[in-house]
Amino acid sequence: MKSTYRNFFPNSEKIYINGKIHHIRVPFRKITLTPTQLENGKTEENQPLLVYDTSGPWTDGEKNLDVTTGLPSLRLSWINDRSDTEKTHHKNDNGIPGLVRERKQAKSGMNVSHMHYAKKGMITPEMEFIALRENANRDDSYITPEFVCQEIAEGRAVIPANINHPESEPMIIGRNFLTKINANIGNSAVSSTIEEEVEKMQWATLWGADTVMDLSTGKDIHETREWIIRNSSVPIGTVPIYQALQKVDGVPEELTWEIFRDTLIEQAEQGVDYFTIHAGVLLRYVPLTINRLTGIVSRGGSILAKWCLAHHQENFLYTRFEEICEIMKAYDVTFSLGDGLRPGSIADANDEAQFAELKTLGELTKIAWKHDCQVMIEGPGHVPLNLIKENMDRELKECFEAPFYTLGPLTTDIAPGYDHLTSAIGAANIGWYGTAMLCYVTPKEHLGLPNKDDVKEGVIAYKIAAHAADLAKGFPGASERDYALSKARFEFRWEDQFNLALDPVRARAFHDETLPQEGAKTVHFCSMCGPKFCSMKITEDVKKYAQEHGVNEHTVFEKGMNDKSEEFSQQGAKLYR
Amino acid sequence: MKSTYRNFFPNSEKIYINGKIHHIRVPFRKITLTPTQLENGKTEENQPLLVYDTSGPWTDGEKNLDVTTGLPSLRLSWINDRSDTEKTHHKNDNGIPGLVRERKQAKSGMNVSHMHYAKKGMITPEMEFIALRENANRDDSYITPEFVCQEIAEGRAVIPANINHPESEPMIIGRNFLTKINANIGNSAVSSTIEEEVEKMQWATLWGADTVMDLSTGKDIHETREWIIRNSSVPIGTVPIYQALQKVDGVPEELTWEIFRDTLIEQAEQGVDYFTIHAGVLLRYVPLTINRLTGIVSRGGSILAKWCLAHHQENFLYTRFEEICEIMKAYDVTFSLGDGLRPGSIADANDEAQFAELKTLGELTKIAWKHDCQVMIEGPGHVPLNLIKENMDRELKECFEAPFYTLGPLTTDIAPGYDHLTSAIGAANIGWYGTAMLCYVTPKEHLGLPNKDDVKEGVIAYKIAAHAADLAKGFPGASERDYALSKARFEFRWEDQFNLALDPVRARAFHDETLPQEGAKTVHFCSMCGPKFCSMKITEDVKKYAQEHGVNEHTVFEKGMNDKSEEFSQQGAKLYR
Repeated sequence: MKSTYRNFFPNSEKIYINGKIHHIRVPFRKITLTPTQLENGKTEENQPLLVYDTSGPWTDGEKNLDVTTGLPSLRLSWINDRSDTEKTHHKNDNGIPGLVRERKQAKSGMNVSHMHYAKKGMITPEMEFIALRENANRDDSYITPEFVCQEIAEGRAVIPANINHPESEPMIIGRNFLTKINANIGNSAVSSTIEEEVEKMQWATLWGADTVMDLSTGKDIHETREWIIRNSSVPIGTVPIYQALQKVDGVPEELTWEIFRDTLIEQAEQGVDYFTIHAGVLLRYVPLTINRLTGIVSRGGSILAKWCLAHHQENFLYTRFEEICEIMKAYDVTFSLGDGLRPGSIADANDEAQFAELKTLGELTKIAWKHDCQVMIEGPGHVPLNLIKENMDRELKECFEAPFYTLGPLTTDIAPGYDHLTSAIGAANIGWYGTAMLCYVTPKEHLGLPNKDDVKEGVIAYKIAAHAADLAKGFPGASERDYALSKARFEFRWEDQFNLALDPVRARAFHDETLPQEGAKTVHFCSMCGPKFCSMKITEDVKKYAQEHGVNEHTVFEKGMNDKSEEFSQQGAKLYR
Repeated sequence: MKSTYRNFFPNSEKIYINGKIHHIRVPFRKITLTPTQLENGKTEENQPLLVYDTSGPWTDGEKNLDVTTGLPSLRLSWINDRSDTEKTHHKNDNGIPGLVRERKQAKSGMNVSHMHYAKKGMITPEMEFIALRENANRDDSYITPEFVCQEIAEGRAVIPANINHPESEPMIIGRNFLTKINANIGNSAVSSTIEEEVEKMQWATLWGADTVMDLSTGKDIHETREWIIRNSSVPIGTVPIYQALQKVDGVPEELTWEIFRDTLIEQAEQGVDYFTIHAGVLLRYVPLTINRLTGIVSRGGSILAKWCLAHHQENFLYTRFEEICEIMKAYDVTFSLGDGLRPGSIADANDEAQFAELKTLGELTKIAWKHDCQVMIEGPGHVPLNLIKENMDRELKECFEAPFYTLGPLTTDIAPGYDHLTSAIGAANIGWYGTAMLCYVTPKEHLGLPNKDDVKEGVIAYKIAAHAADLAKGFPGASERDYALSKARFEFRWEDQFNLALDPVRARAFHDETLPQEGAKTVHFCSMCGPKFCSMKITEDVKKYAQEHGVNEHTVFEKGMNDKSEEFSQQGAKLYR
């Protein structure tokens, strides 16, 4: 698929901003606006708006790209310049013909994680890239490369950036940065092909997914992932236990540490940027889930619970955690500590099982940090509005401010078919409280595997939730887009209103359903109210009169206003003729 | 349109619960569930779930109804029994052939408002109807007829129930009751017909709208309203200034008190249950809006601002407010005091103009209550998440706990085409904080007049928001539907899961997209994860094992478990064969 902005984001172009420390260029989508028509017949320019751009080189019209050869290796020279990696010693394949890449690992004794660099005070190209990227339309003194470095060093943010995924454009997940969203894709045994999944990944990032998780559990897991990573400009996450389970033909009891370890290395060498590791599902927590309404709803959680019970042993992800850390730091794979015991229904929210696991995730965070491994913490799930804040507060306390990464949460169970919406409500709230990344939920949740349309609905719902959170947190610059769009709306610059929208094509299509004529894109009303009842049109008249006659709080009671009032009647009569 | 549940709500039937004080019967939708299949081959019944039903007699298969003759007059005998009304003295028409009704008004000196009855301690049939209606699936000691009466007497709730709308089924709006939603319909000069609007009303109430506002501003305003009211089982609200403005050909400056007063009487005698009255848009507040980004976005607000400036006089809705009260109490029309100065963008949220008007609405509330008129207060609009609570807190304080009725609020401006979602986030939050009724926003907001599909999307989004609010408030019984649905989900009772959903047809369709076979409605997985990766299927095994072996927090560490662990491995191997 070759795509440009043209079809989806009219009046947009890809631009780059250059680094000052490193030789880097950071992509943005620039939306060009039309001028404001002033009363006096003159016009006033409206500054273009820069938008954080996750779509990658695919939307750079200059580039001639093809999924069969993959994306250029943006970060390869940065990684090589650090001189701390070498060709892998493992016997993993080098990829698919056309997509072959040299697999790397850290040199013996080296730690290539960004937390390690940050603790040493190194400002990597990735860090500067992120600082520039986070500063669109805001004062660039807010997010500096040094601030990025410090947040990473202190564990409050992560940069998922595997050395084997040099195609990725650096991004950061932390509550002092823009709220990010993740889109889940991946096939199941029942549905979908590699081509469809690669297309979903490109589609998700076009609409704004900051990371993508490949949750494939069907056939060709390894190959599907290779195609996705080689073509993805955003970090890719996985749940390695899924592939490990495939290797034992779907029988949880037959999982072993060795199979799991080899799977981690296999995926790390393909370039997976973060792994969900359900190391907090302890044997003693399993009985806490027995009397729940919906038991264990995390796939990884249920697999490990079954393993623990069957062997009556402690979860091997927990007992082997330091060995996992050794692997993570050899590739800079970020931990996403999985919430295997998250609640799957309103009835089970904030229960003992959930919070017991969270506490364990906090202990594991400390261990990972000892190894300079990057960590984020996964969160629920299904939680009513009044219980959401407790999740955030506990996570910050028990997990020492490691970034929180939540699925929704869904605020009610009664709307299958609309769970992008039930969960966007929860996501906006928990984002406002401090969650750093929101994992989307599509309208198909609980019902089936999402298709391309569902992916788009999910991404847009979560872009809304994340942006609502950023506005609520009062992030400098976050409100610029709202301001520009509302200004365009009030000035009846219809095309600008569409082009500034998250989904310009839908906005325009909805408008055109009732007023398709080109002329309707300049008139001062729409079909909602018609010409006589448009409040904004009437307000234009009010505003014009007030400005011309110097009406303000102080003058409004003055006697002289009576004359002016007559003038206005005459003028107003004209306005409506 | 003749409709039954059958097409939209499978396994549902209309049932009625009889009153104990009055000769009334209250409708519910009963969803019948299938039994749970137990391990031992036996089954266990699942109680049917009762759902609050706004769809009216249209979904009663026993009735043979037709829009050309309208609905039966459910409340006529209740109203007549009170002996405080008589045939109107005004020369308004008696309706459209087929829909003719005798127009009533209060007898001279009488006050027919429910607040008046409540203050006298009268338990009307309407009050008992409401108490029963609010108690579906909850202990009926929570909402008693006496409690309804008391909340109305104290102004914390309203029953919009015009004596000329006897077709309506009583409902209550107040924060100690279920959160309600309103759907706006109505034509504009540019779009739509009477038939379309009547169909939208029926459609909106089928999906759960608790009240409907007819905001028509196009042609045939009077006739459109007559058709809607005669066929509506939910209260109908209007903004009378729209029709008044039509009477002066759309020129706000030519509005007069006399034209407005006659319009109020005309509409009250047709049966409108609540009027939006923008009496808080004072002359001195207009200058406060001049420097806003989006000025005045309320249609009524802008019309009155223009009138005030043009005449340099105080808003006649304010100066004539007690005369309006006299009309309201002669028909039991409820005040919905309009927020003419609500913010129309994130940039304008919670500003001086908005809160100045709110304070005035509080003063007017006191005046209305002096006349025993029922009052609710309209609220914004566009508000970021962090500023929503202040709106609720101020409303309760400044307006003495009169019910709050808000439009959204939208939590960001950047998603035209998805404003049902940007606003459902705000609506769920403000509902949780105590807003009694949420006015829906459709995906077409800001872009065009909503069609039937948009009405449904808006209603479902707001049913979700209202229910999320009820759960968060911890309303007794509110979580019963979530519980029933999640139980069905966990037990793989797919048909029950669909039938308990807000939109069973969509839930089923989404499931069937990938697994259309009838057999897939009983299997223990869906296309999302497939058979081997279904967490709920695996949890079934875990739960079964734990129950059979008495695994709990205390036994899990016991030595004897080792034997059991072996047993489980054998058993588990069987489970997956």
